[in-house]
Amino acid sequence: MVEPAQHRKPTFADVEAAAARLAGWAVVTPLLEFPALNEQVGGRVLIKPEVLQRTGSFKFRGAYNKISQLPEAKRPAGVVAYSSGNHAQGVAAAARLLDVPATIVMPADAPAIKIENTRSYGAEVLLYDRYREAREEVAAGLVAQRGATLVRPYDDSDIIAGQGTCGLEIARQAAALGRRLDALLVCCGGGGLTAGSALALTELSPGTTIHTVEPEGFDDTARSLAAGRRVANDPGPPSVCDALLAPTPGELTFTINRGLVTGGLAVTDEETRAAMTYAFRNLKLVVEPGGAVALAAVLSGKIEARGKTLALTLSGGNVDPQFFATVIAG
Amino acid sequence: MVEPAQHRKPTFADVEAAAARLAGWAVVTPLLEFPALNEQVGGRVLIKPEVLQRTGSFKFRGAYNKISQLPEAKRPAGVVAYSSGNHAQGVAAAARLLDVPATIVMPADAPAIKIENTRSYGAEVLLYDRYREAREEVAAGLVAQRGATLVRPYDDSDIIAGQGTCGLEIARQAAALGRRLDALLVCCGGGGLTAGSALALTELSPGTTIHTVEPEGFDDTARSLAAGRRVANDPGPPSVCDALLAPTPGELTFTINRGLVTGGLAVTDEETRAAMTYAFRNLKLVVEPGGAVALAAVLSGKIEARGKTLALTLSGGNVDPQFFATVIAG
Repeated sequence: MVEPAQHRKPTFADVEAAAARLAGWAVVTPLLEFPALNEQVGGRVLIKPEVLQRTGSFKFRGAYNKISQLPEAKRPAGVVAYSSGNHAQGVAAAARLLDVPATIVMPADAPAIKIENTRSYGAEVLLYDRYREAREEVAAGLVAQRGATLVRPYDDSDIIAGQGTCGLEIARQAAALGRRLDALLVCCGGGGLTAGSALALTELSPGTTIHTVEPEGFDDTARSLAAGRRVANDPGPPSVCDALLAPTPGELTFTINRGLVTGGLAVTDEETRAAMTYAFRNLKLVVEPGGAVALAAVLSGKIEARGKTLALTLSGGNVDPQFFATVIAG
Repeated sequence: MVEPAQHRKPTFADVEAAAARLAGWAVVTPLLEFPALNEQVGGRVLIKPEVLQRTGSFKFRGAYNKISQLPEAKRPAGVVAYSSGNHAQGVAAAARLLDVPATIVMPADAPAIKIENTRSYGAEVLLYDRYREAREEVAAGLVAQRGATLVRPYDDSDIIAGQGTCGLEIARQAAALGRRLDALLVCCGGGGLTAGSALALTELSPGTTIHTVEPEGFDDTARSLAAGRRVANDPGPPSVCDALLAPTPGELTFTINRGLVTGGLAVTDEETRAAMTYAFRNLKLVVEPGGAVALAAVLSGKIEARGKTLALTLSGGNVDPQFFATVIAG
């Protein structure tokens, strides 16, 4: 079922080609700077708010890049994806724009806003029990049965290249501001946004170090980078970061990241909640837990910002109002 | 006490001069577009999120333009302002940047976040009882006693020119996107943002109609524009829009607005809350009630958006977390 092209390691040229495909469809999100944040950390922090992207996260970029390349003959059978929520919405919205039917396999306990939004884009949503069923198997069944195309969340060359357009924009926007980036911090689940952005930064801003940020207990990428091979998370308590619970780095993403990423940081749920509250109060941006970890790393001093110019992603903003209310109320 | 220059009607050249003063100090906020919102209203809606401005509202623009022109000899005696909150923060932050002492007279029942933020910028805050004291008298006492300079919230040529840089950016950013604006909707209290923006749009985008948006019951500008003279709000129930409760249009602002503004719209508190919730859920922006009225006018169909290109301001985002939580929870 898997086309070989999916497993080809993407290049900077693939990221550029993805940017051309996305032009006019994805939002070129701004690169924002907040004087009060700069003063607080004693450096410059350039913020890429992918919360403002179509579907409220960067995931639309990869999904559109993938589905828009689907051969005409494969479109009527549709696409299938499994996702805890943001990839689901990205695939659903991209498929609708391209008139391709979409079926999304989502955990029954995903945030309600993510399930509702996915349905609102016209996708069929199949809920599964995260503790009793393997989502890959549910999705594989649909692919076999319908002849549909599986759109993987990160281990796919076209997905990685699409997410990389976020990094491409960061590099170009920072250059347009006359800023040399010392470091880029990326919120990291399976590693697709990191890998794609690393391809872009390595080409356009070679002196910039690249760092993943993950929730504590789910810092499989950080530990894998340190070990030089893919290691899995140990069983443990869950995290508020529903978007960043991948069990191990992706195969393809790790092949890229091990060569280009400097290292990984991890933040606690408490630091993540504090970053969400900071974003509400000071940046006036709505950020979901998994989208706030890179900001959390800066605010909690896990990376030195003094005298430096950092860029970071706020990678998604799809958060249930009830949960958001409890977070900002402290 | 009042310098004659304050009462001079500002011109487009004053707005351009203000933009030069603000360069590097105010944030050039982006002009955002959301495909899902466009689809919903059947037109194009360009959003100017002044929630991302320094101090979380457009008010920093006018305050900095005013205080940066204060003669050296007048700086040590400081500035005084009265404000329900956003002008307070703008003046406090601008004064601190310019090393000028600031005293702000604020109602004791202003949102706590606005009082705390104003203090955090180093200003002295004097609370007064909105129902027993006249803020103008409290401020005039301080001016007389200290030889301080009063920074009015809107009826001042330099304040209007400063706020106009928001409209200047809208016109230039829309042109850079290749969009001709059919209409601009501005959240309106005393009319400073409207007047300054109208000066810019009339010069740079002469075919664009300009509309104020106010809360129902506080639509003094709409009724004044219709009557051709300044009329006051009737006594009535309060509004959630704490930032937009000016009793009448400003003298100087109305002199400008009566000639340049097409008309005024009014929205209910319920429509305002719905717009705040929409911004949370779909735009991922934190907007305070008074900053959401222009969006409310579009979402509630008070202005026809179908087939048109509209721009609107989200003029501020300083809202208490508890109140925000109750709004987004419905």
